[in-house]
Amino acid sequence: MDKSLILIQCKDEVGLVALITRVLAQHQLNITAMREFVDEASERFFARIDLSGKVMEEARLKEELLEGLPQHAEIQINPRAEKRIAVLVTKEYHCLGDTLVRHFFNTLGAKVNCVAGNYEVLRSFTERFDIPFHFISHENKTKEQFEAELTTALDKYDLDFIVLAKFMRILSPAFVERYKNKIINIHHSFLPAFIGASPYRQAYERGVKLLGATAHFVTNDLDEGPIIVQQTIPVNHTFDAAQMVIAGKEIEKSALSKAMRLVFQDRVFISGNRTIIFE
Amino acid sequence: MDKSLILIQCKDEVGLVALITRVLAQHQLNITAMREFVDEASERFFARIDLSGKVMEEARLKEELLEGLPQHAEIQINPRAEKRIAVLVTKEYHCLGDTLVRHFFNTLGAKVNCVAGNYEVLRSFTERFDIPFHFISHENKTKEQFEAELTTALDKYDLDFIVLAKFMRILSPAFVERYKNKIINIHHSFLPAFIGASPYRQAYERGVKLLGATAHFVTNDLDEGPIIVQQTIPVNHTFDAAQMVIAGKEIEKSALSKAMRLVFQDRVFISGNRTIIFE
Amino acid sequence: MDKSLILIQCKDEVGLVALITRVLAQHQLNITAMREFVDEASERFFARIDLSGKVMEEARLKEELLEGLPQHAEIQINPRAEKRIAVLVTKEYHCLGDTLVRHFFNTLGAKVNCVAGNYEVLRSFTERFDIPFHFISHENKTKEQFEAELTTALDKYDLDFIVLAKFMRILSPAFVERYKNKIINIHHSFLPAFIGASPYRQAYERGVKLLGATAHFVTNDLDEGPIIVQQTIPVNHTFDAAQMVIAGKEIEKSALSKAMRLVFQDRVFISGNRTIIFE
Amino acid sequence: MDKSLILIQCKDEVGLVALITRVLAQHQLNITAMREFVDEASERFFARIDLSGKVMEEARLKEELLEGLPQHAEIQINPRAEKRIAVLVTKEYHCLGDTLVRHFFNTLGAKVNCVAGNYEVLRSFTERFDIPFHFISHENKTKEQFEAELTTALDKYDLDFIVLAKFMRILSPAFVERYKNKIINIHHSFLPAFIGASPYRQAYERGVKLLGATAHFVTNDLDEGPIIVQQTIPVNHTFDAAQMVIAGKEIEKSALSKAMRLVFQDRVFISGNRTIIFE
Repeated sequence: MDKSLILIQCKDEVGLVALITRVLAQHQLNITAMREFVDEASERFFARIDLSGKVMEEARLKEELLEGLPQHAEIQINPRAEKRIAVLVTKEYHCLGDTLVRHFFNTLGAKVNCVAGNYEVLRSFTERFDIPFHFISHENKTKEQFEAELTTALDKYDLDFIVLAKFMRILSPAFVERYKNKIINIHHSFLPAFIGASPYRQAYERGVKLLGATAHFVTNDLDEGPIIVQQTIPVNHTFDAAQMVIAGKEIEKSALSKAMRLVFQDRVFISGNRTIIFE
Repeated sequence: MDKSLILIQCKDEVGLVALITRVLAQHQLNITAMREFVDEASERFFARIDLSGKVMEEARLKEELLEGLPQHAEIQINPRAEKRIAVLVTKEYHCLGDTLVRHFFNTLGAKVNCVAGNYEVLRSFTERFDIPFHFISHENKTKEQFEAELTTALDKYDLDFIVLAKFMRILSPAFVERYKNKIINIHHSFLPAFIGASPYRQAYERGVKLLGATAHFVTNDLDEGPIIVQQTIPVNHTFDAAQMVIAGKEIEKSALSKAMRLVFQDRVFISGNRTIIFE
Repeated sequence: MDKSLILIQCKDEVGLVALITRVLAQHQLNITAMREFVDEASERFFARIDLSGKVMEEARLKEELLEGLPQHAEIQINPRAEKRIAVLVTKEYHCLGDTLVRHFFNTLGAKVNCVAGNYEVLRSFTERFDIPFHFISHENKTKEQFEAELTTALDKYDLDFIVLAKFMRILSPAFVERYKNKIINIHHSFLPAFIGASPYRQAYERGVKLLGATAHFVTNDLDEGPIIVQQTIPVNHTFDAAQMVIAGKEIEKSALSKAMRLVFQDRVFISGNRTIIFE
Repeated sequence: MDKSLILIQCKDEVGLVALITRVLAQHQLNITAMREFVDEASERFFARIDLSGKVMEEARLKEELLEGLPQHAEIQINPRAEKRIAVLVTKEYHCLGDTLVRHFFNTLGAKVNCVAGNYEVLRSFTERFDIPFHFISHENKTKEQFEAELTTALDKYDLDFIVLAKFMRILSPAFVERYKNKIINIHHSFLPAFIGASPYRQAYERGVKLLGATAHFVTNDLDEGPIIVQQTIPVNHTFDAAQMVIAGKEIEKSALSKAMRLVFQDRVFISGNRTIIFE
């Protein structure tokens, strides 16, 4: 049976759900699951609607919805089911490994178009899965030059998302703006704790009993973008800083993997610095 | 500002959400949050709708909804916000203690009308909170006699729910039927593991690494009612059976407490042997 | 059968375990469980030894151990099994409630000698359990005056620990020094995230997906003492700041309760800014 | 600096720790971490001792230890640091994928000597990592024949452990006996719940709120061997049986991975039907 998916966000107003469901009913679309949320802080309305039935006249449906909704409403009808992504890496393998294995067995929910790295370290692994690896060194280059090369490599593909799978370079505002709301990062701490470098050393010295990881969209404020997933893992006094790194990698992998699943299934909306997630 | 809550369950059909939201809009009620779910296995539709605005003509609203909905639809408009409950206990204090403390500080979401116990052990504790304690011994009585006395005590109150807070008597089908869908139990294991008696001894002998607890509605099939909450807690080889009991109590308390919160906030629907929970 | 417990900490050296176990064997004490740890960063040795058998000549045993151990070794033989504590509160009940219920049923592992509050709010609750409540207002007093009154009240008791169960006054270095390594606090965040005031508002605005709580010993560096327990609880976009507070309280209660259990069972050593915990 | 590891298990007796540490001191070996446990139910003593210093005369050290220990004591001095394993699979990739990625990057703690499957499905994936894949069909064969072929394939390698990474054939008592205490399995449920086939369908029908996975040693009692790791993952009413399978795989992968780490680091002792784990 045909299934459809509609995503809507707009300013909040009285009667939005009634309006939307009336229009959908007129198009013979039956709602099988509807999630909606009003973010009262920002006065924004968000809806994710699963439908049985095929959208026959997409343009007309969109027009009829827009007619009733507040100005600047954003509507997506049947967004691309299998996202297209690039994965950016440096030297650490754990997030890339998990991603490429899921990809190989068609359970990632996305097609990995390429992997780009500022070191060669992960080339052999990537190519074993028949995925192109672009080596773009940052050495002896300005950030501008480096990112220009990166952009050239990425823009050969029609990408929905760029996944920073332990990519250890800070991206410029221009780069982030170019791929606005499309960049997902995994941060090696329970943000906002341990912002910045060497979080595991900081964590060790602070004597924490839990390590965390945070998957988030990247914005211009470093380590400050909308959080998608946070997870923690217990540690104890027997862990030195090196063992904390090992434990932390497990949770980084797990948090990024869950964030990708949620984003690729169109379950995540961005509302200012926060995310609305219809799990 | 006025807020209202409507709960609906019925056979699933095309266009239910559109119908419901149209009727609500006609009554000038604005949906602030709507959760709906279609249980495809049972072909049942469930909705929980938060509204801003006051329901002015409750009878007429209900009638107009029933007109459009499939036969036998169940509608609740503004169910009692503070539930009235009785707590049944035997000798263990941990679940009762947590419940009465929350009650004392008005954060339970329910009024504890009485505590009934088949031992006197918890009388002193209960009465410190100015709550009536009914001692109803099961000794030298048939189950029928015992439950008749219990029913007499309970029916003095207008109860929404009966919470079995480590009440160690098995209730008869007649008793369960009398309070259908109103009895919440905390079971001392991760059901369906360790059904029956001495689950912690069973768990110890099996060498498990996690203990669980299950809060569920009581039905006539012992340990088989719809599950509301399950939680686990890690244990290890240093725990003997007695220490497993202690650890298990923590998780029993936590699971029952969460289940009560969900039920008392009208977030839990029963669908056959499963629950639909709009958290 | 008699059981004994010995705690030792000292500078690390070769052969400490051999030395200790030899002395214990000479005293006819059989080790049933031994936990030891060398903190390589600080070059400190920590041991917790469970013994079957009764220590007959405590002074001589201690002397023989000290003879072989490095200078300044600290030895505790059979520390007081049931600790004596005071609980300091302000207005929030959840940690106090849990503590007094456990105390009432003799499962806290400590005797609550008194509760002291800088508001009257929790007097009625406390006195229901026949525990003295000392109201010591901070209003119109210097910190020095306030703490002098507090000290006078506390020093009537022979206290092993002072538990800050949501006590919202910052204690002076002099006070902390007076009760060095004896003050346990529950902090309303996953330290070091959200240091300072209004952590739940900060957490809400940051859009976190987990809330945390940290139980720690109090030192002169605010929110910087050795961490005993950290726990987290999931939240999502539907939580406003008030609901985050409610969720946070659950985890505060749970973390403090676990920390008390570990400390009262003599399982926690302090090593600089970190804890060694033999769970 | 040289490090050594000694594992000991034997009948419990008075003075074992003193004896062992005395012998170690005579060999100029300094204990950096010692974990010991007496299983009172079975009256067995277990110890795992980390040492700094090199064992110079292994045979003599062993002899001197055996002299003092109860009869039939088992001693391992510096067990092989990198274990040699075979992985057995059927069609599901998730556990194998995780294992081979860790192996590729030298973080598994073991060398995967081969993968053997009763289907060809995972050959391509395995061979991408340059690991031999043995296809041994079970079709049209008795269990005896099938296992004879399997044994022939496996016995070409000098294996420490055989990991059943979603291997869906039940092994005979003879096979299990041949590789006694060497076979690690991942079971798709929170044992002892949902023993047997289709645990996720069972779990769906029971309406559980948590799914579990259990990594255990294999014994002749199906699903009854000593448990190494158990983990759970939350599910809710929106999960159908297929989605439960997907969620369950995450936790299977995680539990097996942790179990392998513990076993390969020589942290796991078997005591009857339970495990002693020095994490």
